Amino acid sequence: MNQDTICAIATAQGGAIGSIRVSGLEAISITNLIFKPAKAEKRLCEQKPYTLTFGRIYDGEEIIDEVLVSLFRAPHSYTGEDSTEITCHGSSYILQQVMQLLIKNGCRMAQPGEYTQRAFLNGKMDLSQAEAVADLIASSSAATHRLAMSQMRGGFSKELTDLRNKLLNFTSMIELELDFSEEDVEFADRSALRKLADEIELVISRLVHSFSVGNAIKNGVPVAIIGETNAGKSTLLNVLLNEEKAIVSDIHGTTRDVIEDTINIDGITFRFIDTAGIRETNDTIESLGIERTFQKLEQAEIVLWMVDSVNAVSQIELLSEKIVPRCEGKHLIIVFNKADLIEENQKEDLSALLKDFPKESTEHIFISAKQRKNTSELQKMLISAAHLPTVTQNDIIVTNVRHYEALSKASDAIHRVQNGLDMHISGDFLSQDIRECIFFISDIAGEVTNDMVLQNIFQHFCIGK
Amino acid sequence: MNQDTICAIATAQGGAIGSIRVSGLEAISITNLIFKPAKAEKRLCEQKPYTLTFGRIYDGEEIIDEVLVSLFRAPHSYTGEDSTEITCHGSSYILQQVMQLLIKNGCRMAQPGEYTQRAFLNGKMDLSQAEAVADLIASSSAATHRLAMSQMRGGFSKELTDLRNKLLNFTSMIELELDFSEEDVEFADRSALRKLADEIELVISRLVHSFSVGNAIKNGVPVAIIGETNAGKSTLLNVLLNEEKAIVSDIHGTTRDVIEDTINIDGITFRFIDTAGIRETNDTIESLGIERTFQKLEQAEIVLWMVDSVNAVSQIELLSEKIVPRCEGKHLIIVFNKADLIEENQKEDLSALLKDFPKESTEHIFISAKQRKNTSELQKMLISAAHLPTVTQNDIIVTNVRHYEALSKASDAIHRVQNGLDMHISGDFLSQDIRECIFFISDIAGEVTNDMVLQNIFQHFCIGK
Repeated sequence: MNQDTICAIATAQGGAIGSIRVSGLEAISITNLIFKPAKAEKRLCEQKPYTLTFGRIYDGEEIIDEVLVSLFRAPHSYTGEDSTEITCHGSSYILQQVMQLLIKNGCRMAQPGEYTQRAFLNGKMDLSQAEAVADLIASSSAATHRLAMSQMRGGFSKELTDLRNKLLNFTSMIELELDFSEEDVEFADRSALRKLADEIELVISRLVHSFSVGNAIKNGVPVAIIGETNAGKSTLLNVLLNEEKAIVSDIHGTTRDVIEDTINIDGITFRFIDTAGIRETNDTIESLGIERTFQKLEQAEIVLWMVDSVNAVSQIELLSEKIVPRCEGKHLIIVFNKADLIEENQKEDLSALLKDFPKESTEHIFISAKQRKNTSELQKMLISAAHLPTVTQNDIIVTNVRHYEALSKASDAIHRVQNGLDMHISGDFLSQDIRECIFFISDIAGEVTNDMVLQNIFQHFCIGK
Repeated sequence: MNQDTICAIATAQGGAIGSIRVSGLEAISITNLIFKPAKAEKRLCEQKPYTLTFGRIYDGEEIIDEVLVSLFRAPHSYTGEDSTEITCHGSSYILQQVMQLLIKNGCRMAQPGEYTQRAFLNGKMDLSQAEAVADLIASSSAATHRLAMSQMRGGFSKELTDLRNKLLNFTSMIELELDFSEEDVEFADRSALRKLADEIELVISRLVHSFSVGNAIKNGVPVAIIGETNAGKSTLLNVLLNEEKAIVSDIHGTTRDVIEDTINIDGITFRFIDTAGIRETNDTIESLGIERTFQKLEQAEIVLWMVDSVNAVSQIELLSEKIVPRCEGKHLIIVFNKADLIEENQKEDLSALLKDFPKESTEHIFISAKQRKNTSELQKMLISAAHLPTVTQNDIIVTNVRHYEALSKASDAIHRVQNGLDMHISGDFLSQDIRECIFFISDIAGEVTNDMVLQNIFQHFCIGK
């Protein structure tokens, strides 16, 4: 284990107060070297844990700042190590000076996520809980906050640990059979094992399926806006985003870069994909953009097909055979824009044009993006098309790609166990599949994870956490 | 006095941890309403001051975050009131939720600087110390940090308070004389008063003069770069700033906006004023720019006159009568740029051209800004031209315009007292001037300051301080 004492600025630059965290074997003694308590008898080394001491940080004779020092002793701290937290005035000059003093006196600058990594290595939390800390800090809505909080409180890792322990029990009995293979005994009750395998399969498949919801909540429901150039895609996006992120102009084919932006409608995050207009063109840059449009379409769950109401008939005839097949399994909303420029009977004709479109997954609406007419109706359509459940802190939902991948592999392994039992395969093959399932379940809580995986996880944390 | 309990986010957005400050009569009881300690017996209301309690913030059944609560009891806190500090994960969503809970339970959102204002009103610090807190947070160099720290530690307000108390003593004796005016007695020893007035005059004038140093340290030594268009002003500025802040081009008159930037050379801050080029022109925008050039010149302490070495003779002949008179009392450095394009003997001729310039305040140097030749020599010239003393934390230097103005007025008043004593004016006139001097001295420490002045001072603080 790493025995260095680490330090890092834990607050962002520019606030009224700033905070520096120190953790490790020498955290208290190093802090003590640069700190003089206001009351001489309140020596830092002699203070009780969970106390604050007021005093000054000195660099030789020079006062750097008046500060409060919080003191924690192992194992009762975030990292599980001796720790101090120096709260000073929020000047970046002062924070840098204090950091330099700490380093001069034996601290090392912390790596991103190193505090949480130490908390994990010292058994203060399992890996999925540690990962939830980063999600919690990044949470920006009630839903993402709830998911992160549920995961930090133990979430599914508790449930999985129970099942894993039962599996371990079975596999050790099966492996015991192998030692007595000549005697052809069965210590492990195959029907009980089959029951357990079914139970595990149920839990894991529920978790695997929850990922699409978790991912939509965490990263937003992906919505692609497509259509001919000049149909008003950027204008609509701007109305929905309520700001000028995309360039709007009257020249055909203005939007060449794929711009992504998220918007929160009634607590649901949508990730909008603005795309280059679809048009036959010799312009190579624009052709590239159109190619990307179709690529992006594949990632979308909801497709908004913008059609200029005035040229709607030709646009739909021209593009429907290109777009509709690509929208299979997605929700398609055909948005007739500039609808203020056509008559009511023309709208009826346009609606009739869509009679051959798949009914259950297609809707249409008439709007005017420029005049913001009917755009709030469109927002309601989006919300119902997202069909996301309301999530509570007690719901167990997978949001992390690493967990999703481990669960998918555990799911494959448990399926092989189920099939193996049905086909009465021998104990050694069965044992191998059970071990694999145990491995992937354990991977989520970080019980079998190697250093490289850990490094990869924690490098995405911010410094000071 | 304000009895509200106030709350504010005291850390900047985006760090690993965030901190919310609560202060006022109900700070502890309101925090207690939304906080459950991890150990049920550690009830917040019963905790000792200067302790930390670990637990969770709840909104009804929903966990908002796991937090640490610091507890302080009046008068031993920053504000002098009961206070708590809630340290949570640095998610802006979480911080906002905690703020909303506090407000829902009876807190009010703090005004900018309200914590420090309360500290002042509760007698934890005088006004000049409170003002130093804002300077300390804004300090970005060793020198500005030292000045702010000296002022926060009491600085000159202690010295002034002593002198003021002596003056108060005299004026009350003089006023006593007035009560006995028919008897023509002198309780106040005029020669002792004269001695005190001289002492005060000495202290105040030292402080008043320190302001130019203090201001230069705090805001930077103002340097104007002037010269004909295309002489290389922007290029030089960019070399000194080491980045592309000004637009550099070969077209005459490119730089139309007055760009200010600061640079730290060997611990001294210079505030550079880049100006529009001087040239006869019909372009009204550019004429405006040139007008501003001359206005800015007046604010400068050091003037860098950039001259294109190739056209140097004509430029100097044309502009010296316009520039030299405006540089009186300033330090003028004539910078012959593009010196790589001329011969050594031409340099001698150019040096000779300057023989009529005021010697003690004029220097010249040959450089090539584009090729970075001799620019470090120019930096050395700037440092010696700034002639700033090295400041320690024990030096008493005025950096605050409000203090400077109060001291200037106190200085006027004490001069009138000195003159009055010389002219043996009557006690009532004398008393009036002494009272005025006392008023302005007291103003610095905030002893006579009204609400409007306070509001004006603290509104420039950040929220949470």
